Amino acid sequence: MRVGIAGLGTVAQGVLALIKENRARIEAQLGHPLHVTRVASRTPRPDLDLLGASFNTDLGSLIADDVDVVIELIGGVDDAFTLLDQALTTQKHVVTANKALLAERGNELFDKARNHKLALGFEASVAGGIPVIDVIKTGLAGNQISSIVGIVNGTSNYILSAMSENGTPFQDALKRAQELGYAEMDPTFDVEGIDAAQKLSLLTALAFDKQIDGDAVYTEGISSMNVEDLQYARELGFAVKHVAIAQRTESSIDTRVHLALISDRNLLSQVSGVQNAVQVEANGVQSLLLVGPGAGSRPTASSVMSDVIAVGNGSSRLPAAATTQKDHVAMDDIECANYVNIQGLDVPGVMATISDVLAKNQISIEAVIQKMEDITTENGQPRVPVVLLTNRVKESVMQDTLKQISQLPTVSDTIRRIRVLELD
Amino acid sequence: MRVGIAGLGTVAQGVLALIKENRARIEAQLGHPLHVTRVASRTPRPDLDLLGASFNTDLGSLIADDVDVVIELIGGVDDAFTLLDQALTTQKHVVTANKALLAERGNELFDKARNHKLALGFEASVAGGIPVIDVIKTGLAGNQISSIVGIVNGTSNYILSAMSENGTPFQDALKRAQELGYAEMDPTFDVEGIDAAQKLSLLTALAFDKQIDGDAVYTEGISSMNVEDLQYARELGFAVKHVAIAQRTESSIDTRVHLALISDRNLLSQVSGVQNAVQVEANGVQSLLLVGPGAGSRPTASSVMSDVIAVGNGSSRLPAAATTQKDHVAMDDIECANYVNIQGLDVPGVMATISDVLAKNQISIEAVIQKMEDITTENGQPRVPVVLLTNRVKESVMQDTLKQISQLPTVSDTIRRIRVLELD
Repeated sequence: MRVGIAGLGTVAQGVLALIKENRARIEAQLGHPLHVTRVASRTPRPDLDLLGASFNTDLGSLIADDVDVVIELIGGVDDAFTLLDQALTTQKHVVTANKALLAERGNELFDKARNHKLALGFEASVAGGIPVIDVIKTGLAGNQISSIVGIVNGTSNYILSAMSENGTPFQDALKRAQELGYAEMDPTFDVEGIDAAQKLSLLTALAFDKQIDGDAVYTEGISSMNVEDLQYARELGFAVKHVAIAQRTESSIDTRVHLALISDRNLLSQVSGVQNAVQVEANGVQSLLLVGPGAGSRPTASSVMSDVIAVGNGSSRLPAAATTQKDHVAMDDIECANYVNIQGLDVPGVMATISDVLAKNQISIEAVIQKMEDITTENGQPRVPVVLLTNRVKESVMQDTLKQISQLPTVSDTIRRIRVLELD
Repeated sequence: MRVGIAGLGTVAQGVLALIKENRARIEAQLGHPLHVTRVASRTPRPDLDLLGASFNTDLGSLIADDVDVVIELIGGVDDAFTLLDQALTTQKHVVTANKALLAERGNELFDKARNHKLALGFEASVAGGIPVIDVIKTGLAGNQISSIVGIVNGTSNYILSAMSENGTPFQDALKRAQELGYAEMDPTFDVEGIDAAQKLSLLTALAFDKQIDGDAVYTEGISSMNVEDLQYARELGFAVKHVAIAQRTESSIDTRVHLALISDRNLLSQVSGVQNAVQVEANGVQSLLLVGPGAGSRPTASSVMSDVIAVGNGSSRLPAAATTQKDHVAMDDIECANYVNIQGLDVPGVMATISDVLAKNQISIEAVIQKMEDITTENGQPRVPVVLLTNRVKESVMQDTLKQISQLPTVSDTIRRIRVLELD
């Protein structure tokens, strides 16, 4: 089996290292020798051991007779698309770690791979080293999946973990993540949930045979997260995580990315730092949790190599040709419990008026925290936080109710709300 | 694809239910229709929907031209071996959930399957619904695995969890597990670690290409576990789990099953009840944790169906023909930190004499708990427990040191020791 590698960045270096160190095991799994025949990258790296491959700065050089599988590790959309499209046209299998490419132009590539009966491996594009594509496609092949909940963006999870463990405010935690190389200088893609939504759309296609564009996923980021709310949530027995959720509803697939309270009795609540995790619920396995590194040179390379070996073994992991779902389930229709932090004036009867509005909207209070020592000041006025957990409420009802509460004369209009995620 | 099912017990019923409910998805993954053509079981079950299969009480009826894959779910060794051996002889693929069979006669069956170029699926034989065989074989195919640590016996884990959460003594927790159907009336197989050792030998063959008999694994059970030690361990920041460990050493594979303290910062420490978990460390992925149901009708059926679909897709998961390792690594040579509970007499200087023996053996104390309120009575004499955590010590040195301490005049001779498992 002869592979050509596009790119010489972090992941490509991990791939070269794994092939060098693990050659015997890889070839035993493959059943035949593995040759890296070509490497192409705009920037030559004469310091790296290319394992005998010929090097070229032209990506097109990989479309050659001595390459059976093209591994795309350059990132970006246009050049990567051109390369993989040409590779498929010339009957080469392809493997990519490029989630942005797949989110934007994956359907074209998947269709082409299907038509040409070629493999398109993309294990490395979701959740780094966690073999979640393989688990959904193979390990759970006999299941009807009902939901997938993932912590799939290491940057956001690192920031939330730092905020929760050290009480660091969002901006400081973000800055620290940037210093450590966990966050880009423009962090929008990660902290606004766009990256997570793209990964979710790939998982959804595999698990539910539904193609959903990343930008059709309902998406909220983490920049509104407040350190105080992390502390109150912990007092109530919850951690706050930024989760990507896809779940089957009666008629459709509900896909969304947002902050959520998760009970600290569920292991998912304890996945911290740059770790990723995916919990799958299905009618066979019931509940399965996978936890591992969401990024990094060797973990991502581990997923790339898993695809390369699967290509060699003829086991494809293409998503089935799927029906397209253009929109997410209307958020108005979802139902969940809610964490609510209301800043009340320091006057008698605040709690009574809030309870009254909730009762009128048929919302019950499952837990409440109100402590006089937590008084803060807003515009020179003292504020007493009233922290509540509600029962399960329809989103539209919750939104209306929060609007009504914000109009109470005894309440400041900055109400913070986080949805609660109930897991088995 | 035409399958024949042997057995109509819990797992077989789960398999029939999944095929019935998930037929569309299963056939989409398979790429062709799935027919259950024959079912054989000593006990007819006219109440069950056999999905159109013909029924026979003779297991030999499955060796027929209209069966491509034999699924063995009868348990036991001799009849199951005869059935699968015949199936392979007549060029049928086989799938089994029978770990005892594989532990005893797996090598013969694997060799035969390899020689006949047939599949022998055994995902369901280890860790119930967790697709750990697939993950090791496929998801981590490009990795060199350095260690596997598993909680692979749900019965033991249930008993330890009940002891830890409710302070229930071992015998009572065992009785409760028996009432709930989690433990057999003769629980030896589970609580003495024999089941875990058999599963470990299967995982070791896959991960390290080494065949190790279940009875060559160093094995300790959980019946010596004491509720007090669970509480002390928790104070020190640890949970106690019954773990199966396989790790690469310089020259060999160290395989053992025993109680171990695991830091509560590691998710593995929080896997409770009948859940199973497997943590794999490897030079690509670094660390990967899988958590899911270790038994049960549908979860086990989920693994069976994953094998059936893999057979249909031509992706085999046979362990490589492996070199045989007859013995476990000598326990004398392993090194670990230790939890030690020493019952001292209530006289001055007990701690000093113990520390003295430890120091003479070059063992340092990392943490200590000694509380006067924990005084107990043994043979009418008061005893003060001295609880210690040591640094990493060679097992032979630890054993010698404990013997020396037990001979001190101020110490009772019932010293309890549990190894500490350090994980990344």
